[in-house]
Amino acid sequence: MATYTPPLRDMQFVMHELLGVTDELRAMPAHAEMDADTINAVVEEAGKFAAEIAFPLNISGDAEGCALDHTTHEVRPPKGFKEAYAKYVEGGWPALSCDPAYGGQGLPITVNQCLYEMLNSANQAWTMYPGLTHGAYECLHAHGTPEQKAAYLAKLTSGEWTGTMCLTESHCGTDLGLLRTKAEPVGGAADGRYRITGAKIFISSGEHDLAANIVHLVLARLPEAPLGSKGISLFVVPKFLVNADGSLGARNPIFCTGLEHKMGIHGNATCQISLDGAEGTLVGQPHKGLAAMFVMMNAARLGVGMQSLGLTEVAYQNAVAYAKDRVQMRSLTGPKAPEKPADPIIVHADVRKMLLTARAYAEGGRMLSLYTALLIDRELSHPDETVRQEAADQVALLTPIVKAFLTDNAWLATSHCMQVYGGHGYVKEWGMEQYVRDARINMIYEGTNTIQSLDLLGRKVLGDNGAKLKKFGRLIAEFVEDEGVDEAMQEFVNPLADLGDKVTKLTTELGMKAFANADEVGAAAVDYLRVVGHLVFAYFFARAAKIALAQRDSGDPFYAAKLATARFYFAKLLPETAGLIRSARAGSKVLFEMDEALF
Amino acid sequence: MATYTPPLRDMQFVMHELLGVTDELRAMPAHAEMDADTINAVVEEAGKFAAEIAFPLNISGDAEGCALDHTTHEVRPPKGFKEAYAKYVEGGWPALSCDPAYGGQGLPITVNQCLYEMLNSANQAWTMYPGLTHGAYECLHAHGTPEQKAAYLAKLTSGEWTGTMCLTESHCGTDLGLLRTKAEPVGGAADGRYRITGAKIFISSGEHDLAANIVHLVLARLPEAPLGSKGISLFVVPKFLVNADGSLGARNPIFCTGLEHKMGIHGNATCQISLDGAEGTLVGQPHKGLAAMFVMMNAARLGVGMQSLGLTEVAYQNAVAYAKDRVQMRSLTGPKAPEKPADPIIVHADVRKMLLTARAYAEGGRMLSLYTALLIDRELSHPDETVRQEAADQVALLTPIVKAFLTDNAWLATSHCMQVYGGHGYVKEWGMEQYVRDARINMIYEGTNTIQSLDLLGRKVLGDNGAKLKKFGRLIAEFVEDEGVDEAMQEFVNPLADLGDKVTKLTTELGMKAFANADEVGAAAVDYLRVVGHLVFAYFFARAAKIALAQRDSGDPFYAAKLATARFYFAKLLPETAGLIRSARAGSKVLFEMDEALF
Repeated sequence: MATYTPPLRDMQFVMHELLGVTDELRAMPAHAEMDADTINAVVEEAGKFAAEIAFPLNISGDAEGCALDHTTHEVRPPKGFKEAYAKYVEGGWPALSCDPAYGGQGLPITVNQCLYEMLNSANQAWTMYPGLTHGAYECLHAHGTPEQKAAYLAKLTSGEWTGTMCLTESHCGTDLGLLRTKAEPVGGAADGRYRITGAKIFISSGEHDLAANIVHLVLARLPEAPLGSKGISLFVVPKFLVNADGSLGARNPIFCTGLEHKMGIHGNATCQISLDGAEGTLVGQPHKGLAAMFVMMNAARLGVGMQSLGLTEVAYQNAVAYAKDRVQMRSLTGPKAPEKPADPIIVHADVRKMLLTARAYAEGGRMLSLYTALLIDRELSHPDETVRQEAADQVALLTPIVKAFLTDNAWLATSHCMQVYGGHGYVKEWGMEQYVRDARINMIYEGTNTIQSLDLLGRKVLGDNGAKLKKFGRLIAEFVEDEGVDEAMQEFVNPLADLGDKVTKLTTELGMKAFANADEVGAAAVDYLRVVGHLVFAYFFARAAKIALAQRDSGDPFYAAKLATARFYFAKLLPETAGLIRSARAGSKVLFEMDEALF
Repeated sequence: MATYTPPLRDMQFVMHELLGVTDELRAMPAHAEMDADTINAVVEEAGKFAAEIAFPLNISGDAEGCALDHTTHEVRPPKGFKEAYAKYVEGGWPALSCDPAYGGQGLPITVNQCLYEMLNSANQAWTMYPGLTHGAYECLHAHGTPEQKAAYLAKLTSGEWTGTMCLTESHCGTDLGLLRTKAEPVGGAADGRYRITGAKIFISSGEHDLAANIVHLVLARLPEAPLGSKGISLFVVPKFLVNADGSLGARNPIFCTGLEHKMGIHGNATCQISLDGAEGTLVGQPHKGLAAMFVMMNAARLGVGMQSLGLTEVAYQNAVAYAKDRVQMRSLTGPKAPEKPADPIIVHADVRKMLLTARAYAEGGRMLSLYTALLIDRELSHPDETVRQEAADQVALLTPIVKAFLTDNAWLATSHCMQVYGGHGYVKEWGMEQYVRDARINMIYEGTNTIQSLDLLGRKVLGDNGAKLKKFGRLIAEFVEDEGVDEAMQEFVNPLADLGDKVTKLTTELGMKAFANADEVGAAAVDYLRVVGHLVFAYFFARAAKIALAQRDSGDPFYAAKLATARFYFAKLLPETAGLIRSARAGSKVLFEMDEALF
């Protein structure tokens, strides 16, 4: 009964009308041939894969889950996952934005972002298999030795092999400095091989039968490594060793010893992994493993934002279909469908509010994430070093916002969409409660949303005295100045300018307080991130409204809907910032007044 | 690993220090003998039952769920549920607040409320079996014929039989006016029996082996009944017919034909029920079934509030234990446990914020629900008719707040508590994700929270021109006047007075707008309910703070904790109202601008 239609029109709007990606991309030598038709055609095909192949396996995958054979340590994902993955590889999708040097198609990250939004709408649990693979590719592409690149990158690009991130241990997740897994050199320095021993947990896609080999990226400690996070190194540890000719060798002793029983994402194998002297090679410098892993982690954080954007969109689409079909009560202003026994529930104000909340969070998330993707394309491919660095700074600023704001929003939005169904939302039949359960993990993994907020306020904003934030603020100030004279834009420009001023003041105030007491950062960070997230959304919705206003006589209802959504966002969602700013300003004292023993 | 300790000290504080329930109750003839020791002793024993009998079955009950035998139509709840229920009956707990005329113990509703909070902390799914029974008891006690009372009340009081509410059908839940189940008289008017035919869904505790008989209260239409909600009648339909001597007769054809597969409350049998000419008798007047059922519904709505209060408390307790034990990262202000590899996470500001949010919502919910329970005792037992009516009015006002505000808060609080665990919160092992899943249904059933908000704003507030709200407002105004001179109370009194003024203005404004456009009620109602909920909490926290301040030199750390929680509530949670009021004032236009086809 569940449905999914790729939101191609809105993606095209964001890419071409809002961001003008084609012109931007064509200024980069790697993408000089890009044109809108090519981008749109690829995204449309990607949507077909998502809707026709991945989506039909979503509810069944949740119901079935994964199974571990404790004797062979092999894991069987839900029925159909392997076949869908084979089609994904056959279609060349893993290679979409990979380096042509390794068989990639070299398309922009912007296009890849569209693919991932749709895959996650279709089936988050399934998408985590190729998703983590892409992260492993990026990490090895950035930090691998020539030998590692030769051994792994072509296979990860094609998708013949998949990847994982093996970070968490049972006693440490956020605080990786505590980890205990050990790596011991096999021979002399020339040998380059290590034997790795330890136990990891929460390893997504850690074991499965989708691919011939699994490339694990594992954090471990070298002998005599310094304590804490400065003593952690990164290793690549394949499930099957790779012979010099690229063929598969012996089974490496890195085994799945248990599957986690989780609230959601049942179709993904979340593994306990035991390394019993597994052979691996060092990635990057000794003791600098966290830095190398952060390439993968940053990609993963943006990927998690895409997961939540995808869930928001698909939950919205289904809730709308239900709200148009389900009849219940009459409108408070009198019957709207007198020929029916009751009105479709979409006539009720709060049902509309719940639907529009999800819609606005999907559209806002899409604008922010495609903007960020375009920045990554700049960072990777722009010929001008200064532009690349500026783009990298903006990506650094926006990454925690994409991760935390989009995932918090999806939790709100999927819950609202489920509420539209009433009791029918709480039963599994309609698939809505699965979106809520799946969405919940996104607030936790790849750095909890609290960690994201500390990264934003502590490191990205206060860490450089607000320089990165000011650059984003200048975009807003320019827009406000340009549009401030347009009467029709006042309803958007005024609250945007007002919130921009408030964020500036709040940032200054928190910086001063943090100077005296570091706990002030922790006390305000979560509220602060949400305020800045709204500022970013408000900026993009104002820009979208400007385009929609210019097209209002076009007769294309898309623009009427865009304008209505922007107005809803400003009227009903942006006001949350009023309470958040008060809470952010309330300081740390009320959090620390209570003695630990009294909790 | 999960733990639960009944919050006896805080219950005693609320009952005796905040509300002075003993003096109030002793003014009622039915409770003239009440004293604090008796109340405390009963509550303590109730806590033992909850913690020792019901709680150990919570996680296992979720994992196992219920099983239906499609041949016999019998349902087997999870292992241990039947035995626990037998102990509950043996302990006399079902009879606690029931009428002594039917074997009840005649204790105040206030005491029963404490019992139910603790049972729901221990095991919401299990508690729904006795919980619905109590609702059926109240409905028959209020509206049953002498014959029905004789047949059913003693058995429901003892708990030997259990009860259900059979309202929902697949095409109608909120809009019961659409229901199709039919009741046809068996003989003439003197016979009094009806044959009832139809299909119900979402029937909690609809079939099970805990009790010898199940007393179903069923909504159905009589022949020639008017269309809509004015043509619905209420019937009592037992699983086994009851002979004149009280013994069980023939199996009535009211069968469970399916179990719902749900997000949570797996231990409760949520049944599809088929009535194939089942025999029943009319409760109350023909076509007045909804009014009669509302006795049960109002009790159920308060009961749902208790479910969420219980979940908030138990989630809080477990998250605190985890936060004190789990070490991860150092405090931003330097090591707090230098002897450990990292600090316990309770040193981190945002962890404290998440814990204190749950704590404040639990304490606020307890104050509001025990206050409401005391009002119900007044309504039922006070000798003065005027006092009874005033109490009934206040209960009517507060019921949708207890239902919706407490259940929304529990959704926030259980999610926060789960977040404290990081990835360990998302796996089933620790039991935290179950609290989130269980809490979600409470926002839906017994009238969705949107329906509660329409009931509050449309019927309870605007429906009598704010008279009931003004009475509650007078309590606040008196408190503000009394305490306004106390310097130490300014931090509580000022924001309380300020919010009170804002609610008055908002109510007036919404009333005017609703006069011109009824959709303005629907557009603002959900925000409005949350604002009023905060006003009520702020009032009780201010009163609690006053007591805590008076006791601050007592050396009892309970008062220091109470004061710290009140301060946290005012500083970090109450500010949400700033955004809510703006959203409530934003009107309905932005919700209706988008054409239905464009969603």
